[in-house]
Amino acid sequence: MILTLKTGSSKKDIEKIILKIKELGFKPQVSAGAERVVIGVIGEKAIIHRDKFEQFDAVEAVTAISKPYKLVSREFKKEPSIITIGKNVKVGGKQVIIIGGPCSVDTRANLMENAREMKKAGAHMLRGGAYKPRSSPYSFQGHGEKALELLAEARKLTGLPVVTEVMDPRQVQIICRYADVLQIGARNAQNFDLLKEVGMAKKPVILKRGLATTIEEWLMAAEYILSRDNDQVILCERGIRTFETATRNTLDLSAVPVVKHLSHLPIFVDPSHGTGVREYIGPMARAAVAAGADGIMIEVHPHPAEALSDAHQALLPTQFAHLVKEIKAVAEAIGRTI
Amino acid sequence: MILTLKTGSSKKDIEKIILKIKELGFKPQVSAGAERVVIGVIGEKAIIHRDKFEQFDAVEAVTAISKPYKLVSREFKKEPSIITIGKNVKVGGKQVIIIGGPCSVDTRANLMENAREMKKAGAHMLRGGAYKPRSSPYSFQGHGEKALELLAEARKLTGLPVVTEVMDPRQVQIICRYADVLQIGARNAQNFDLLKEVGMAKKPVILKRGLATTIEEWLMAAEYILSRDNDQVILCERGIRTFETATRNTLDLSAVPVVKHLSHLPIFVDPSHGTGVREYIGPMARAAVAAGADGIMIEVHPHPAEALSDAHQALLPTQFAHLVKEIKAVAEAIGRTI
Amino acid sequence: MILTLKTGSSKKDIEKIILKIKELGFKPQVSAGAERVVIGVIGEKAIIHRDKFEQFDAVEAVTAISKPYKLVSREFKKEPSIITIGKNVKVGGKQVIIIGGPCSVDTRANLMENAREMKKAGAHMLRGGAYKPRSSPYSFQGHGEKALELLAEARKLTGLPVVTEVMDPRQVQIICRYADVLQIGARNAQNFDLLKEVGMAKKPVILKRGLATTIEEWLMAAEYILSRDNDQVILCERGIRTFETATRNTLDLSAVPVVKHLSHLPIFVDPSHGTGVREYIGPMARAAVAAGADGIMIEVHPHPAEALSDAHQALLPTQFAHLVKEIKAVAEAIGRTI
Amino acid sequence: MILTLKTGSSKKDIEKIILKIKELGFKPQVSAGAERVVIGVIGEKAIIHRDKFEQFDAVEAVTAISKPYKLVSREFKKEPSIITIGKNVKVGGKQVIIIGGPCSVDTRANLMENAREMKKAGAHMLRGGAYKPRSSPYSFQGHGEKALELLAEARKLTGLPVVTEVMDPRQVQIICRYADVLQIGARNAQNFDLLKEVGMAKKPVILKRGLATTIEEWLMAAEYILSRDNDQVILCERGIRTFETATRNTLDLSAVPVVKHLSHLPIFVDPSHGTGVREYIGPMARAAVAAGADGIMIEVHPHPAEALSDAHQALLPTQFAHLVKEIKAVAEAIGRTI
Repeated sequence: MILTLKTGSSKKDIEKIILKIKELGFKPQVSAGAERVVIGVIGEKAIIHRDKFEQFDAVEAVTAISKPYKLVSREFKKEPSIITIGKNVKVGGKQVIIIGGPCSVDTRANLMENAREMKKAGAHMLRGGAYKPRSSPYSFQGHGEKALELLAEARKLTGLPVVTEVMDPRQVQIICRYADVLQIGARNAQNFDLLKEVGMAKKPVILKRGLATTIEEWLMAAEYILSRDNDQVILCERGIRTFETATRNTLDLSAVPVVKHLSHLPIFVDPSHGTGVREYIGPMARAAVAAGADGIMIEVHPHPAEALSDAHQALLPTQFAHLVKEIKAVAEAIGRTI
Repeated sequence: MILTLKTGSSKKDIEKIILKIKELGFKPQVSAGAERVVIGVIGEKAIIHRDKFEQFDAVEAVTAISKPYKLVSREFKKEPSIITIGKNVKVGGKQVIIIGGPCSVDTRANLMENAREMKKAGAHMLRGGAYKPRSSPYSFQGHGEKALELLAEARKLTGLPVVTEVMDPRQVQIICRYADVLQIGARNAQNFDLLKEVGMAKKPVILKRGLATTIEEWLMAAEYILSRDNDQVILCERGIRTFETATRNTLDLSAVPVVKHLSHLPIFVDPSHGTGVREYIGPMARAAVAAGADGIMIEVHPHPAEALSDAHQALLPTQFAHLVKEIKAVAEAIGRTI
Repeated sequence: MILTLKTGSSKKDIEKIILKIKELGFKPQVSAGAERVVIGVIGEKAIIHRDKFEQFDAVEAVTAISKPYKLVSREFKKEPSIITIGKNVKVGGKQVIIIGGPCSVDTRANLMENAREMKKAGAHMLRGGAYKPRSSPYSFQGHGEKALELLAEARKLTGLPVVTEVMDPRQVQIICRYADVLQIGARNAQNFDLLKEVGMAKKPVILKRGLATTIEEWLMAAEYILSRDNDQVILCERGIRTFETATRNTLDLSAVPVVKHLSHLPIFVDPSHGTGVREYIGPMARAAVAAGADGIMIEVHPHPAEALSDAHQALLPTQFAHLVKEIKAVAEAIGRTI
Repeated sequence: MILTLKTGSSKKDIEKIILKIKELGFKPQVSAGAERVVIGVIGEKAIIHRDKFEQFDAVEAVTAISKPYKLVSREFKKEPSIITIGKNVKVGGKQVIIIGGPCSVDTRANLMENAREMKKAGAHMLRGGAYKPRSSPYSFQGHGEKALELLAEARKLTGLPVVTEVMDPRQVQIICRYADVLQIGARNAQNFDLLKEVGMAKKPVILKRGLATTIEEWLMAAEYILSRDNDQVILCERGIRTFETATRNTLDLSAVPVVKHLSHLPIFVDPSHGTGVREYIGPMARAAVAAGADGIMIEVHPHPAEALSDAHQALLPTQFAHLVKEIKAVAEAIGRTI
């Protein structure tokens, strides 16, 4: 950690800061530059004490040198993490994983048809919402446990492991009974009590990026889960909020190489929420794979007119099957498989 | 709700859409423009069915005409809401309410000193964190119930009603036992299960705006609480996330007149989190009052060097007392009191 | 264009608006909904008169139905535009075009070495800055005409057409004497006098997206050029400004399918400025091609330590050659060539 | 400037960097921390050489210690700058300056009526556009020199100094013949050739902030003008671009105290463009003054229905007169005058 002092800081100011550094068990290293004094604070995890130094009037800026996360970092673990889901889905290896399914589970018939189509098209996992985060209290909020039962039935039918969202710490237990993977949605990306609870659940987790979450904060959110001894975390980029309105969100595909550089955790991309427009999902799914994503998450519905949420961004099963072929070609072009 | 069709939509496309409109119980009104066909969907709350229409391939855009919220709107309730806290704090009337206190509760001595100073300086309420949302799992997470007890003691000492943050639906009950006002923080602004729980608690709520929450979404979050029969909601602007880094967040003061225009709910401003820099808190607090805010929330600590979070943005009690005087002058200039 | 009136608008308000609509030569179409009155304004280019209606107190919102641009739209011209540069570079067809070269032209030796390496690696065009937009007045501002001469020499040496940036309407003439393509940089994306001047120059133009320019505004900027009878415009996505700081900008790759959907103009992507980090350029270049970009623009320098700007985001020629091979594989996977 | 090296950097890497530091005439200072090596580069303006160090593979981050601007900084000039316009308008002192007038000059009669009303209401300067930056090439582009003549006539009539926008370096000379203050609009905030030209003009300049310009970049843009020996620069905050759509832009009022802290230059606020909604202009004008702004810029038109641009955000002269009274009360509450 580096403390940049204001110009004109007095000797007394500097001494007080040095005293504090020593008091906390760190080593100070003072550099008197042409215009300012800069003090290095040498010692592991010094950055945790950032607040203590920011409160000195003479300190203009505190600059982190070490990363604020540890367990999720490449420096902590050099090799990419491989996370096994169900019996034989391996996330984070050579294979690009494809997840398909409805935004929210509606009827039994629709879900079973969807699951069968997903399986046939080559998807590796089935997604479907049981508890739905909706902007409006008047919108459909999900069928809850009934939907979880249907998901479990669809798994039995097809063998596809099941992903579903958890919104409330009190839901973790019941969802764990039915699902193979817990998903944390964008609006809960910094719901810290939920992260802790999921950390204790010891199930694989897909952690979506929040709409205004920096990559560093997102990795810190993952650190919450890993620090509870659950290291089965898959990150999922799904678009951030910017000024552009031609797409529902701005899919930040650069997050893929950035996360790969900083962390050993696998990263997925969700172009359905990222673009919010059916026509743009295919190109962005291909782009995500070309950028190095370990998996893709796509909303599919056999009868969009009957969907209870996000119908306009759902692909038809035939469109999805076509997309899987395109993804396969791109994956192979960069030395991966699907 | 208005449906704009793609150019070149066929008669058959149009008929299918009209059929759907009628099926849902609404009245279609078709306008054939120079380039496109536009269909009005006439009927109350038609916008709830937005998804149903977005999924038609021929529909290029769906435009809301009515607002998606109801109970929080000015159209539903013309007069501004007045919310009573404790015995005699009235929020939303002529008086501008001032809340002061530490980011998080640390020692008993510090809190009591702080509370006494707040009271003396003219604050109307005391804030203090017991459960803290922190980006890092390794940062101080709050003293929990112990802190709640201290807050209740400080209230007894000074008579100031107490505000504290709730992060988890499971904390609502215990916090209600101690606090006068429940605060929902920025990172939980769209934690819908928490909003529902707090809606059922029937305590006044300060609902902070999320970092990437539009004003419309924020009002929808408030609607979650009101639709659970709790209409004691105070909104609080605390900065949104933008590209600018000179301040911790970008305090969107325009939200004050916008919320006043759209809603009957009172609105506070938190310039401490909004700017994150001690020097900028005073000017932005004055600006908030001049813009029409119903209250101000300020972080204060008698000994910032001992604070366990956000020390660098805490004012000293003397600085706070000075600020209260400035706020008073501005409030009186626009015909209000403190 | 659709006018949404405020609730409670009077008959007289409505009549005044209808009068205005007729006065301007349009046809009004009134829909009285459950809560509000909505008036359609039927007629070509009605949206140009938006201001006239926004000023009525009774009008709450004006919604555009037609697009505000014309010549650049897919509706105006269905087939994708093919732009020929030099003798045989065709932009916008099956081939993905690759541009490489230094951020700014420095020494003759470096530029010639760079050009030869670009040619050998398979680039189709050479880029290099002669006039440089720099945040600081104290930074290197470009070698001006001397650099233009060197670019022309490099073209002679290699046959590669040359792209260089124009910042000032007064530079258009001289740059046209030397360059094959005029580039308009992000900071001048809405420098309307420059757009007009370049429109009159009848040279191919690469129009970069501004840091805060919506796709619609960007297409309007292109419309400025086309409306001056220069239809040789190539759009270039190079990152927008968001809250994320892990990359220099946020490369908005979704702009590729969006532009393809809305316009017949070709679109390039510049991952060098988009990410600002050497390690991320390769993955994002591959992703851009997979998303459907018609070309890629990459900064390359044979001796980055001698570069006068943006050294840290320049690839070495060997890295560039490797990237061209990767791009080729992805291009072929989606049915294109390089 | 501080260089943070990657973990695992070799001794040889470090030596190469130290060599470069010495070669450029600076003094290296090496700190070996628990996890990483950090090297301080001691010497004036070292940050100008940022690029040279960013290109080393072993360098993970370069952190500026000194500010990249000089002439505009508080450190360079402690006292606030006072800029005199016309005979007796003093900007940057105790008085808050009020500018009113139409977005663009239309008819002679409207402008003279407007100017007389501005004078009567207490405005200190008159604004009006002659050359207009418009998103669409089909929108009204300003009456050019004819409008400049009318502005000069309005000045003669009322004694109010005149502000008008310059968009093109080739317009600087003619505008200087008529106007008292040159305005640089948001879209040209980083049009560096225009900044240079205006720097040489030796007229007072109002420099608006760009839609995606950080405060640091904005100060650098001002530095372009000051470094050409024109120190009569007034900054003007007019809203930045964010995700929020309830207002046209997000007025970043925190920029007022931030600029005051970093620079000696005066700062104005333009709530008309900042909000884009007539109802919100008054509250935000009051807030700007309370935050410490040195002046306010308001769009006023006596007959908005005849305005050729931005009619919906123009106040009527009576509304403006009322606002001036409100501003006066707030100004006096914080010890200033109007």
